[in-house]
Amino acid sequence: MKEPLLMRLENNVYLDGGRLVMVDRREIPREIRYVVTRNYKEVAQAIKDMVVQGAGDIAITAGFGLYLAAREQEDANGNCHPDNLAEAAATLRDTRPTGFHMAVLLEKALQRVQEETDRASEVILRYLKELLTRQDNVSRATGECAEPLLESGDTILTHCFAGAGLLYMLKYAKENGKDIKVICTETRPYLQGARLTSWSISQLGLETILITDNMAAHIMSQGMIDKVFTAADRIAMDGTVANKVGTLQLAIAARFYTIPFYILGYGGVDTRTLRGTDIPIEQRDPKEVLEFQGVAISGEGVKGLYPAFDLTPRDLITGVVTKSGIILND
Amino acid sequence: MKEPLLMRLENNVYLDGGRLVMVDRREIPREIRYVVTRNYKEVAQAIKDMVVQGAGDIAITAGFGLYLAAREQEDANGNCHPDNLAEAAATLRDTRPTGFHMAVLLEKALQRVQEETDRASEVILRYLKELLTRQDNVSRATGECAEPLLESGDTILTHCFAGAGLLYMLKYAKENGKDIKVICTETRPYLQGARLTSWSISQLGLETILITDNMAAHIMSQGMIDKVFTAADRIAMDGTVANKVGTLQLAIAARFYTIPFYILGYGGVDTRTLRGTDIPIEQRDPKEVLEFQGVAISGEGVKGLYPAFDLTPRDLITGVVTKSGIILND
Repeated sequence: MKEPLLMRLENNVYLDGGRLVMVDRREIPREIRYVVTRNYKEVAQAIKDMVVQGAGDIAITAGFGLYLAAREQEDANGNCHPDNLAEAAATLRDTRPTGFHMAVLLEKALQRVQEETDRASEVILRYLKELLTRQDNVSRATGECAEPLLESGDTILTHCFAGAGLLYMLKYAKENGKDIKVICTETRPYLQGARLTSWSISQLGLETILITDNMAAHIMSQGMIDKVFTAADRIAMDGTVANKVGTLQLAIAARFYTIPFYILGYGGVDTRTLRGTDIPIEQRDPKEVLEFQGVAISGEGVKGLYPAFDLTPRDLITGVVTKSGIILND
Repeated sequence: MKEPLLMRLENNVYLDGGRLVMVDRREIPREIRYVVTRNYKEVAQAIKDMVVQGAGDIAITAGFGLYLAAREQEDANGNCHPDNLAEAAATLRDTRPTGFHMAVLLEKALQRVQEETDRASEVILRYLKELLTRQDNVSRATGECAEPLLESGDTILTHCFAGAGLLYMLKYAKENGKDIKVICTETRPYLQGARLTSWSISQLGLETILITDNMAAHIMSQGMIDKVFTAADRIAMDGTVANKVGTLQLAIAARFYTIPFYILGYGGVDTRTLRGTDIPIEQRDPKEVLEFQGVAISGEGVKGLYPAFDLTPRDLITGVVTKSGIILND
């Protein structure tokens, strides 16, 4: 079993000299291409352009952007006052509005810089290394908590890229001798399911099947799906899950066919978000819907709409798997 | 208001000399390209390759294939015995298994050739001209029956290409001064919604918005959809509707949000199909899911699955609109 490239972030977002290198997730797996960013503005642009994807990975990448901003000031002035990082932090934070991980990480990094006496760049880098280890530990723990939900012979459905926790869950199930098959929705318009998820899972040596987003209910109706697993970009205190658009549709179909629907919730709920309706839904450029790899797929007079996330209410979710256990909804 | 190219079949599938010309629907609207076929085998291949789409249009195109087979024999032998058309009819019929229109049309054409004294090609051509007129009349009548379902201010959702009946319905609504907005699902993998439907509707001068297939439930949850309209490839006697894959998923989501879901049923139920489960679901080449315009979107070890249709049970359907009126389900 090969370790999938996307199982640990340090393999695909890392410092090389004074630059931040990222594997371009938009090109995976057709091509393994690297995007090299030299300053926080380039990092912000790369995040906006979806070179990295997934709330946790985006947050750490933004943290590296803050590190580059600190380094830049230290190189120019010999040191970096935390106040001078505010602009970089704001620019990075404003790239994607839905996730809260990035805002929290940037805030904490700035706080540490205030509190500690080392150079800002060293403080930030130490913090990011802690986070990388912690993120991997959270993914492993989430995968461990989720693994017992799988029974040998199960076919699971997953949407978008549910992160390393899904890969660990499947890896552990395989190590435990369970025979699991995975069906991935392609996840238009960015095709994360086709490009990241199905590719990563097939690297684990599991049978992996790709479908278009509109086929899910049909294959459920044929009895082909035993369980559904997706991630969450944010979980509100009322149990509402914000995740890649399409999650809601799958949850409704799963309920219709009485199929358990689990969320890989990693760190758990965002205690700062009381209700699902408090979560802003990012509206991305409609061009991304109207074009495919730069080629227009529709006519000139047609408009597009691109809500990047949707909100799945608690009562459609069977359980939320976190690093510490499973929260079953009744 | 411009007449959409796809509103009447005679504008996009027609004889030119001894050849059958078809507007290539796979390239619309990026390019208006013509596929020219010289014999029934080329017509069968074009149908298989989805140069034409939609059960009724495919059927008439197959009929033109039979006409070319008759002409070929008449040119070679001075006449064409109906028995010699059996092979051509079988080849054409076997191109797409789900629709019944094509099988019925070919059978009736052969029967007319048996019964009438004119040359086979003349009999078939006369029959096809009757059908073209009848098809347009059925579309107009279906559109007329459906139009009163629309209220000014409605936003409707539609999937795949629901045929000329949808276009007539919208045209009549506009003529009656109703303000209607249409949201189209792109309908992967062939993108009929993006390429055919949204383009045709925008030609009618209506506000037309394109979404990916996974966004439908989300926009329903936002109160953005008043009614859903799709076509049917076949309606069984038990009320089950076979239509482009994704229809079932929309019907389930519409039910969840209590949104009326209408089927444009044109000619009505297929009295030869007792139950929905009797309808074969065409499994197309998985390559069509694994690639987009010839470019692989996933990794090498990943399999694809491409059921082209799904079955929506009667109890998820609010009503079926036919040329003769609306059958409301209770």
